[in-house]
Amino acid sequence: MTQRAYNFAAGPAVLPESVLAQIQREIMVLPGPKASILEISHRSPTFKEIIEAAEANIRKLLKISDDYAVLFLQGGGRLLFSMIPMNLATKEKPSADYIVTGTWGKAALKEAKKEGLARVAWDGADSKYTHTPADSDLDLDPNAAYLHYTCNETIEGVQFPSEPQGGEVPLVCDASSDFMHKPIPIDRYGMIYACAQKNLGPAGVSIVVIHKDLLARSSDDLGAYLNFKLHADENSLMNTAPTFAIYVVRLVTDWLVNDIGGLDKMYAINKAKAKMLYDVIDASGGFYDGHAKPECRSLMNVSFRLPSEELTKEFLQQGEAQDLTALAGHRSVGGCRASIYNAMPVAGVEALRDFMIAFRDKHAG
Amino acid sequence: MTQRAYNFAAGPAVLPESVLAQIQREIMVLPGPKASILEISHRSPTFKEIIEAAEANIRKLLKISDDYAVLFLQGGGRLLFSMIPMNLATKEKPSADYIVTGTWGKAALKEAKKEGLARVAWDGADSKYTHTPADSDLDLDPNAAYLHYTCNETIEGVQFPSEPQGGEVPLVCDASSDFMHKPIPIDRYGMIYACAQKNLGPAGVSIVVIHKDLLARSSDDLGAYLNFKLHADENSLMNTAPTFAIYVVRLVTDWLVNDIGGLDKMYAINKAKAKMLYDVIDASGGFYDGHAKPECRSLMNVSFRLPSEELTKEFLQQGEAQDLTALAGHRSVGGCRASIYNAMPVAGVEALRDFMIAFRDKHAG
Repeated sequence: MTQRAYNFAAGPAVLPESVLAQIQREIMVLPGPKASILEISHRSPTFKEIIEAAEANIRKLLKISDDYAVLFLQGGGRLLFSMIPMNLATKEKPSADYIVTGTWGKAALKEAKKEGLARVAWDGADSKYTHTPADSDLDLDPNAAYLHYTCNETIEGVQFPSEPQGGEVPLVCDASSDFMHKPIPIDRYGMIYACAQKNLGPAGVSIVVIHKDLLARSSDDLGAYLNFKLHADENSLMNTAPTFAIYVVRLVTDWLVNDIGGLDKMYAINKAKAKMLYDVIDASGGFYDGHAKPECRSLMNVSFRLPSEELTKEFLQQGEAQDLTALAGHRSVGGCRASIYNAMPVAGVEALRDFMIAFRDKHAG
Repeated sequence: MTQRAYNFAAGPAVLPESVLAQIQREIMVLPGPKASILEISHRSPTFKEIIEAAEANIRKLLKISDDYAVLFLQGGGRLLFSMIPMNLATKEKPSADYIVTGTWGKAALKEAKKEGLARVAWDGADSKYTHTPADSDLDLDPNAAYLHYTCNETIEGVQFPSEPQGGEVPLVCDASSDFMHKPIPIDRYGMIYACAQKNLGPAGVSIVVIHKDLLARSSDDLGAYLNFKLHADENSLMNTAPTFAIYVVRLVTDWLVNDIGGLDKMYAINKAKAKMLYDVIDASGGFYDGHAKPECRSLMNVSFRLPSEELTKEFLQQGEAQDLTALAGHRSVGGCRASIYNAMPVAGVEALRDFMIAFRDKHAG
């Protein structure tokens, strides 16, 4: 078998090797239905057990009460950017507030404006999206339908250290790139959502955790697939669910529960992994130029620049030669980015750290 | 390894065993990126090659010219039921015509009515959805935005023998359960679409083939994910595509091209497979009661009833004991249904035929 590289892709991204091995063992045939997970009905007892186990794992890991529904949807964050204002803005509360801390917050706002009224509660464009706002910097509408923010900006590598204070307005959080990287106070959220392909599984499924009170806002006039309430009423089986993607989410959350031991432990590992790389950046004398301000650096996406395009290119090439892959920054910003999600092994981060130190020692002045 | 059954599920459904074996070989690591297909970027060279190969296969098999775009979308038929009127109805042509030949046509019409004006061009409810209409029975609006029909009703097992005549109005076809089961005159279609999980791959991706002239109808006001034109402009990579599902579609279409030898050959096999079962039904003296009228029987979904609930239950149980699985009819109609998509081996249909004959001989008076 070809050796596996340490894959620092921003998403789709690295999965636990034990999960891939289990998929490999089971892909031809599952014992019960005597068919592949790819071939069985979303209404079969076997798949029912899979989706229920995935939901139970998510509820257990995030300590989610029955006040919330957990949904498995298709269309990624992009479709949810439209569905959120469609469902959550109402006649009484027609306008939503958006905190924009980077590319994805901006994209969410753009879609919200197409569906109705959306205000900017804060936008970090002037400071080039290097930090998150203090609560006192937020310009909040107390009558907003909801307050939307992006807890981790994948491209800029900027992460909220904790939830912003939205007062009585329901908090809606795009957690696509750091979902389940640490414990969170779920009661603070009206809704938190994430596409799976960064921290939770393959591309093709998104997880939505939504307070059941908010489901009453969904109008019957909405297209069926666009209606959160219908998805909740049908336990995400209104139509054919993305069965394989949900199966993998179940395996990844099994791994979080059983192999890692829960989100407290995952958080400790994630902090240690990120520290390794930020320490190299901080000790590099400016050779590695981190994008985010230290107090809101992402534990998931470490974005940095080298002194020149030439050195960036050489860094990426040499990294790849050492099986440290997908370290290029997003095409919209360039530079470098190491995505070190839950499933990135400590050994991978250690290898990258050592490479960064050696590369800097060779090229810095 | 557990023995694989012959799986007659209506979808997600049987895949070619050689495709499953290839997935198993490759799932841990693809040589180029040294990572799993589940872990690589939708913008990586490896995935670009995969999605381009999938599209090339579909174009080759259906002889699709450059006048059409081929899209890979999420959300299944259900989301497309909403997206079609959103994109294709216009100010000048605000109303669409729908031919309803069963459950899925009815569901498509329901969503269209939420988005704007939709007329019924024909509805087979009075005859319990046992047949498709003659062209002369259609009540067509010559100014309709499009004429929608469901070429194969998965639940009722009713299939159009050929395309209805819609005059100058663009034909929009839900081919979810018989896509690529035979060659079609693609120029007759304005748009043809199918979720993959019946005849083409796993759940989680839909294929849309749409004439480029129709893309001009998509308004910029539409949510990004809901806009056909944006998907076409970005070659289905506006956002993270369901990479694994598209990879499997590529493998299944490789199998159609290389192992089967194209759609003419696939069609001959499909006709022979369906004939085996309908011959048993016709020779059963009424023991097996086929739902659809003979001239529009589905080659994909063979729906039939037994004389009693007790016999139906016994039939399903004994079938399962012989590894002939998932033969129950849809929960909305009951009875039995054998879905015999492209990937169902001839040997599987032969085994079911023999079982049906033996069961009838034992129980028919």
